Amino acid sequence: MTSSRFGRLAPGVRDLLPAEAYRMRRLQDKFLQLVSAWGYQEVITPTFEYLENVASEELQEDKLFKFLDRQGHLMALRPDMTRPMARLVATRMKGVTPPLRLFYLANVFNYEEPQVGRQREFCQAGVELMGYSTPQADAEVVALVTEYLSSTGLSDFQISVGHVGIFHGLVQQLGLAKEEAQSLKEALGNKDFVKVEEILSTHAATPAEARRALDLIELRGGPEILNKAMELAADGPAADALKNLRSLYQGLQDHGVEQYITLDLGLLRGLDYYTGLVFEGYSVAMGFPICGGGRYNQLLSTFGHPLPATGFAVNLERVLVALERLQGPPQDPTPDVLVAWEEGGYANALAEAGRLRNQGLKVITTLAELPPAKAKSEAVSQGVRKMIYFRGDGTSEETLI
Amino acid sequence: MTSSRFGRLAPGVRDLLPAEAYRMRRLQDKFLQLVSAWGYQEVITPTFEYLENVASEELQEDKLFKFLDRQGHLMALRPDMTRPMARLVATRMKGVTPPLRLFYLANVFNYEEPQVGRQREFCQAGVELMGYSTPQADAEVVALVTEYLSSTGLSDFQISVGHVGIFHGLVQQLGLAKEEAQSLKEALGNKDFVKVEEILSTHAATPAEARRALDLIELRGGPEILNKAMELAADGPAADALKNLRSLYQGLQDHGVEQYITLDLGLLRGLDYYTGLVFEGYSVAMGFPICGGGRYNQLLSTFGHPLPATGFAVNLERVLVALERLQGPPQDPTPDVLVAWEEGGYANALAEAGRLRNQGLKVITTLAELPPAKAKSEAVSQGVRKMIYFRGDGTSEETLI
Repeated sequence: MTSSRFGRLAPGVRDLLPAEAYRMRRLQDKFLQLVSAWGYQEVITPTFEYLENVASEELQEDKLFKFLDRQGHLMALRPDMTRPMARLVATRMKGVTPPLRLFYLANVFNYEEPQVGRQREFCQAGVELMGYSTPQADAEVVALVTEYLSSTGLSDFQISVGHVGIFHGLVQQLGLAKEEAQSLKEALGNKDFVKVEEILSTHAATPAEARRALDLIELRGGPEILNKAMELAADGPAADALKNLRSLYQGLQDHGVEQYITLDLGLLRGLDYYTGLVFEGYSVAMGFPICGGGRYNQLLSTFGHPLPATGFAVNLERVLVALERLQGPPQDPTPDVLVAWEEGGYANALAEAGRLRNQGLKVITTLAELPPAKAKSEAVSQGVRKMIYFRGDGTSEETLI
Repeated sequence: MTSSRFGRLAPGVRDLLPAEAYRMRRLQDKFLQLVSAWGYQEVITPTFEYLENVASEELQEDKLFKFLDRQGHLMALRPDMTRPMARLVATRMKGVTPPLRLFYLANVFNYEEPQVGRQREFCQAGVELMGYSTPQADAEVVALVTEYLSSTGLSDFQISVGHVGIFHGLVQQLGLAKEEAQSLKEALGNKDFVKVEEILSTHAATPAEARRALDLIELRGGPEILNKAMELAADGPAADALKNLRSLYQGLQDHGVEQYITLDLGLLRGLDYYTGLVFEGYSVAMGFPICGGGRYNQLLSTFGHPLPATGFAVNLERVLVALERLQGPPQDPTPDVLVAWEEGGYANALAEAGRLRNQGLKVITTLAELPPAKAKSEAVSQGVRKMIYFRGDGTSEETLI
């Protein structure tokens, strides 16, 4: 019991002390209130799953926390919630008439190189909206994540919105092989536009075609870029994706959240299950995305229950870090009142504490008979605003601290 | 991706669908409200720890979910929260003036043979009260768990209350060696009083001493058993434990919770860190304890920060199962209103949905333009009480479902 690790935590995970845990709890409460008001229902899945339920080609296995169960099966701590949600709906909720509006608040695990805002365990708050492939369904999840981020006090965030069909359209138009498409995806993911240009120039039929492709994929901004994009894509394979983005943007305007939206035609997310809309949210206070999501119309069918779906996940750990940078450290959630007592006053003190709690106050009592001076110093160290002291003769005295 | 495990869950873990997850969320909300009113503050620790932080002699390692990290260190999914809380306080909160009142809501993991109510992953709701070794501190945690269980709707529960000092007193009085003490502990844990009697008879100096020891350890009931116990223990080594129990019981009467309490002088809990009070809560609807706890005055010093402590943990999975048996299956948390629209009515529908949500209603909208009959069948399948349908001309119509 005296190794150098005793009393220490593994890299990439951390404790939240009361002030931070309180801020985290409020973030979760706001999420619960909001998504419940929008008719979403919670589901809970296990922390670990059989590896085959959460692994995939693109979710690198070396990012997973794996272990063997005692039957020799590989298990993994869930790296995200979208696959478990798809599994759950495809197996346990097959008979429910769509649409399904589901949410979760769950810890997920990624074997990342630890940095501030990049922990190996973090809490995700997310929704999945299953059963509709309309732009209005996509608009609902983007509007909902926007409303949620606003409610947290992150006033400065922006949501980048793209569509994987633009990338797939380019791949098709240029006739890229799988490895070339993968290189292009990585270059786009790294915003390495020199590399992107190199790939496009190598494979385009003409320099003008390469130029148009690069111009398209670099477009970023408000709805005005969609007209320009339509010209560049002409009737090519990306055109449907652009029409879909236009309808989505209209829906976001109808929701009144367009001020938070930046269209980004080069946006791709790292997960292979997206089939349409993709988005990521950023705060100036955080170098990593604080949320992300998109449409995944094929994932449920891999679990045997074809159903289009769209959703988002917010990384609450990152919201917590961003809020700390924007608003400063959180405050301890101190109690309001200390009820103290001397011998003979205990029962009266407990009764008074109960009455005050019923009035909505946070009340602590002393845990031994204390003379008034010691009780007062406990009141000070516990951070209460008021002390009530019960004497053995049944009388009591209030002191503001 | 097509193994026989694809789409399935590992033994001993389960999904909670919306109705159950909603009941679970309400159990957690009640806990949060109650312990906050009593001045407890939340802390959060990681799901996994270095093995040496959570393992111990008596917590059998084969009950742990273990894995190797990439540095070759053994890690474990936490099997309970008391050790992680002790570690956290001893390392990160050393400078905080006691008492510390902390709570957690956390999933823990035990490699048990799965049964209903005995899952390998379950949510624990618990508190730790650190810094006082008085009977009033013990009374606070027992009163608090009692108030919590009442608030969940479990009307039939009882808390068995004992003290490990009675067992240790017997071990000392009879001069039992470590293995003999362990056999006695196991026999008591299994309520195998034939075996208990055999051990006592073998080691007692006289048959009368064995009889007195057996009578003591079999005592179970209200406060009247304490007088009888005092006679049996005389001034032996168990007498201090009995005096402590008497003060504790007085505190529970002052809290007004004595109707839920059964003293049980043979009660022991399986964990080796308890040093005084131990307790377990039972419901008629559940064969396993639904909660447990006690005093552990040495555990924090193993982490380098000597501080007496007492606490409880409620197994919310078991409360959920007990409530299902007592009250029947939980209800789906259906939304209140469906706002539907035809072409041209979408923006008005969204605005109305927002207004109704601000009034506290749970509101869903249709995700495509639907003719009134289709909208109504969606209202029925979604379980709402009311539908509001927005036409393209700006008018709307309400229908009760």
